[in-house]
Amino acid sequence: TLCFLSSPVNFLDHTQHKGLAVAVYGVLFCKLFSLNTSPNPLPFIKDGKTREYWMILSLFYYPTLYYPLLACGTLHNQVGYVLGSLLSWTHFGVLVWQKVDCSKTPEIYKFYSLFTSLPQIACLAFLSFQYPLLLFKGLKGTDKTNASEFIVLTNVALFICSSNASKPGVVERITDAVKSYIYTPEDVFKFPLKLAISLVVAFIAIYQMAVLLICRVVPTLHIVRKGVDEDIAFLLAGFNIILSEDRQEVVRIVVYYMWCVEVCYISAMTLSCLVNLAMLMRSMVLHRSNMKALYRGDIYNVYNRQRIIRPSRPALVCWMGYTSYQAAVICLSMIIQTLVFFICLLFAVFLVIIPILYGQNLILFRILRNMWPFWLMLILAGIVQHLAARFLFITKDAGTRDLKNRGSLFLLTYMLFPVNVLIGVLVGMWRMIISALFNIVHLGRMDISLLTHPPVVCSAGYRCYAHYLKIEVSQSHPVMKAFCGMLLQCSGQDGDSGQRVRDAEEGIQLVQQEKKQNKLSSTKRARGHWQLLYTLVNNPSLVGSRKHFQRQSSESFLNGTLNCATNEGSNKESSPSKKVESASCN
Amino acid sequence: TLCFLSSPVNFLDHTQHKGLAVAVYGVLFCKLFSLNTSPNPLPFIKDGKTREYWMILSLFYYPTLYYPLLACGTLHNQVGYVLGSLLSWTHFGVLVWQKVDCSKTPEIYKFYSLFTSLPQIACLAFLSFQYPLLLFKGLKGTDKTNASEFIVLTNVALFICSSNASKPGVVERITDAVKSYIYTPEDVFKFPLKLAISLVVAFIAIYQMAVLLICRVVPTLHIVRKGVDEDIAFLLAGFNIILSEDRQEVVRIVVYYMWCVEVCYISAMTLSCLVNLAMLMRSMVLHRSNMKALYRGDIYNVYNRQRIIRPSRPALVCWMGYTSYQAAVICLSMIIQTLVFFICLLFAVFLVIIPILYGQNLILFRILRNMWPFWLMLILAGIVQHLAARFLFITKDAGTRDLKNRGSLFLLTYMLFPVNVLIGVLVGMWRMIISALFNIVHLGRMDISLLTHPPVVCSAGYRCYAHYLKIEVSQSHPVMKAFCGMLLQCSGQDGDSGQRVRDAEEGIQLVQQEKKQNKLSSTKRARGHWQLLYTLVNNPSLVGSRKHFQRQSSESFLNGTLNCATNEGSNKESSPSKKVESASCN
Repeated sequence: TLCFLSSPVNFLDHTQHKGLAVAVYGVLFCKLFSLNTSPNPLPFIKDGKTREYWMILSLFYYPTLYYPLLACGTLHNQVGYVLGSLLSWTHFGVLVWQKVDCSKTPEIYKFYSLFTSLPQIACLAFLSFQYPLLLFKGLKGTDKTNASEFIVLTNVALFICSSNASKPGVVERITDAVKSYIYTPEDVFKFPLKLAISLVVAFIAIYQMAVLLICRVVPTLHIVRKGVDEDIAFLLAGFNIILSEDRQEVVRIVVYYMWCVEVCYISAMTLSCLVNLAMLMRSMVLHRSNMKALYRGDIYNVYNRQRIIRPSRPALVCWMGYTSYQAAVICLSMIIQTLVFFICLLFAVFLVIIPILYGQNLILFRILRNMWPFWLMLILAGIVQHLAARFLFITKDAGTRDLKNRGSLFLLTYMLFPVNVLIGVLVGMWRMIISALFNIVHLGRMDISLLTHPPVVCSAGYRCYAHYLKIEVSQSHPVMKAFCGMLLQCSGQDGDSGQRVRDAEEGIQLVQQEKKQNKLSSTKRARGHWQLLYTLVNNPSLVGSRKHFQRQSSESFLNGTLNCATNEGSNKESSPSKKVESASCN
Repeated sequence: TLCFLSSPVNFLDHTQHKGLAVAVYGVLFCKLFSLNTSPNPLPFIKDGKTREYWMILSLFYYPTLYYPLLACGTLHNQVGYVLGSLLSWTHFGVLVWQKVDCSKTPEIYKFYSLFTSLPQIACLAFLSFQYPLLLFKGLKGTDKTNASEFIVLTNVALFICSSNASKPGVVERITDAVKSYIYTPEDVFKFPLKLAISLVVAFIAIYQMAVLLICRVVPTLHIVRKGVDEDIAFLLAGFNIILSEDRQEVVRIVVYYMWCVEVCYISAMTLSCLVNLAMLMRSMVLHRSNMKALYRGDIYNVYNRQRIIRPSRPALVCWMGYTSYQAAVICLSMIIQTLVFFICLLFAVFLVIIPILYGQNLILFRILRNMWPFWLMLILAGIVQHLAARFLFITKDAGTRDLKNRGSLFLLTYMLFPVNVLIGVLVGMWRMIISALFNIVHLGRMDISLLTHPPVVCSAGYRCYAHYLKIEVSQSHPVMKAFCGMLLQCSGQDGDSGQRVRDAEEGIQLVQQEKKQNKLSSTKRARGHWQLLYTLVNNPSLVGSRKHFQRQSSESFLNGTLNCATNEGSNKESSPSKKVESASCN
């Protein structure tokens, strides 16, 4: 183990030169990607029948082929660098010569093979440049011992940085959201080698998928568009579609529509690329913050539960597969995204943009126009509810808010129930669309689970539930109910009310005890103080509402219920309220 | 405000009789649902042209029509109950008479109108029974004053219950998961009235959608199946599909296939119903636990952030719309679920079950069989990685775990990179399928956001990332690096190493200070102790690994790096390790 650091298998260690490993992985991934389409997976075998067996063999052949490129860098001596230079020059030369020799291939698209090997050429060029550079540095004696360089990586500063959660404004929040998608390197933090490899491979995967998606479809569309002639008019007439009386006009329209389809497809592909690049950047930001948090020991924030950070069997298997999985998932997500965006853009172009531009086929607009009374009603109902909620039903007083006009609120709720069902259908559709879009956009990101994560605000359904809970809890808090019950017991002194009380609950037992000592006013008051304090200590959120209970004694719900149950009027019932106030002074 | 409690608009208050409000809402929702299909939304107008305007009017007419049924119950006196009895009897009588008089209607399916009004009849029957009961109780003087009954609701016990988080076994966890989907009433907790209404309306919505989905499709399928004759053989031959030479045989096969489609459809619909019922139960459990948590003041656990629980404009609008939204979302989700389940079942039946039963059209199996070398390779690669991780790369010692054979690990990772990309494609597909299924199943639940929530374990991609982070952090913790760096500085005393150290970071400054006092061994040791303690206090997770560092001194990575940088052999470098041990005794 003495010289493990400069052993040829130590290529994924933190002490190694990052660029070399990243470039070799890039070369390997490009080769793997081009295996998909090439008829001969191995260079020396041209047997079409047993292709799949050679394919499997090639999955192990190419890693072995490129391994020396990787190993030469780990030796940390001149021999290694010389060998590395020679090897990388050979590989680079062979590849470039191959591409120059036959730049056009019959598969998919004549230049596909050229485009797809560009990153491979770039990686090999990097290696061809880097190895001589390392050799040169070694000769001049300025080669840093990488082994001791990792002291520099030490960043105790990591442990000092903590998020200071001051409440930001709207502009700041938007700026923060944009910033969280832009990765700015920090001196103090460096990505682990495996993560750097994953990111570069993911980037290459995006490029390769983009080239593949374009080359598979666009040339075909071009050929089809060139082949459109006057026969298309008869064909369309067979399906009862008559675009125009003039056959030349039909050809013109069909060609134009096909051009639109092509534009939609390329836009969808570009959009998918941009989305994936943005997601990759966001991932980098998140990787950094996650790793920093874990270094700090802040496990709960990353995993949302307590875990022990130590190597285990599944963890190690995941670590081995991470780079590959990331690349595969990005490829899959680009296919799905391009498909979905393409369909959406087609709908948008053919149902919205072209009808508006040419004033024909306004099917969608006609449907929407015919439904205008419904839309108007829904919008009006929405506005009425918001305005009523704002001005009629909420009362602000002494810094707290409460409901008023509860009767009208109930009536409005009931009367608008059928209309709200229709609004609910729209809410449900929005929920569906937004969640589908969220999942499709984030499909390529391994660092978030698609079954979890934050942007709750957009989910109309959940937002409604969260808000609903707020109102329900603020209006039916059992402590408030217990308090009301206590007051009722004090003021309405009818004999049989004790029978209604259940013994099971603690709160009730307190009330009962109080009933027995009903005549001893001072004891009762002391007990009241104690109960109030107990309540407030357990529920600090009620403190803010307390003054309000006294001030608004003639209007609030509490007294509404009180007044109704007692026959002794409002004079007597003000004393418990005062009791609350006096207790707060103690 | 004195008698607000018995005012006719106070029908959504906690003090009211729950059954009455629930039943009236049920009646209203059934009526609303039947508006969809009826040609005449209002009973007295038969004008097909302006139907949509009458439809809008009917959205307000029916709430008004059924309002007296609701209001009579809130008066809390005999007059109200008598009126309520008469009204509910009238409504019930009219509806039953209507259904008996013309039980078959031309719309959709002859018995559809009858089926769809069954819940309405049930709700009206409940009202017809409940009002006389209330009247009877009132006459006998046993009518509880609902106003004071809510003392009984008081449940201070709520504040005592807290979750005791002991680590459960697998069986217990499964039992808990099953239990969390079964709602068992608790004496101490009663649902708020609005929530009870929402749940009953949601239940009715499930029933209505089920009836609608069945009646819309199944009778049509029956008719088509009966209409299949020998012409179908020619039609299929036109599409180049020849099921059999004998035409009778073709008819038999087509009828059989259509029967299969029908079975798939009904199964999909039933599955969707069951899923929604299960989700409704789960919602009830979650509602209860959420409300209890909020009552306790445990806001963070419910909303995942701090919020102030008080009425606000959007919250109030959401409260008003909650019941309607819930019903609409359930209807939408049932449509989508039935569609998706139907397609999945069709695939399963026609690509898996029928081919297996009849031994023909084994397309899927043939594809899978042709790909067996790939499957075998993927499975073998998976097994090899797991076994290697278990037996070769993880060492358990003194209660801690660490990596060993790092070279082989890196080599295996690199060699299996291409194979892992293929596994990654499967992982990505699984991720897509599971997230789509999760979203579709939970579409009808308002209490969770589709963009958030727990079952992270199923998301293969995220699981991989989470595990990956574990390994990465456990192997590249900067404190460990700083520690290694410190040891390196102590043992390898080459002069120019100080230049490489950056001044910016605190950890480095400590190292530098130490270098200056290199000869003062006792000061150095004391400083080492202090640094160790500082490190351990800030990173308690490292404590477990500490002993291990010393025991495994000949094998561990730490020493691998150490040995390589220093030329003084292993004798001297054991002293820093001992320093660590001795510091722990202080």
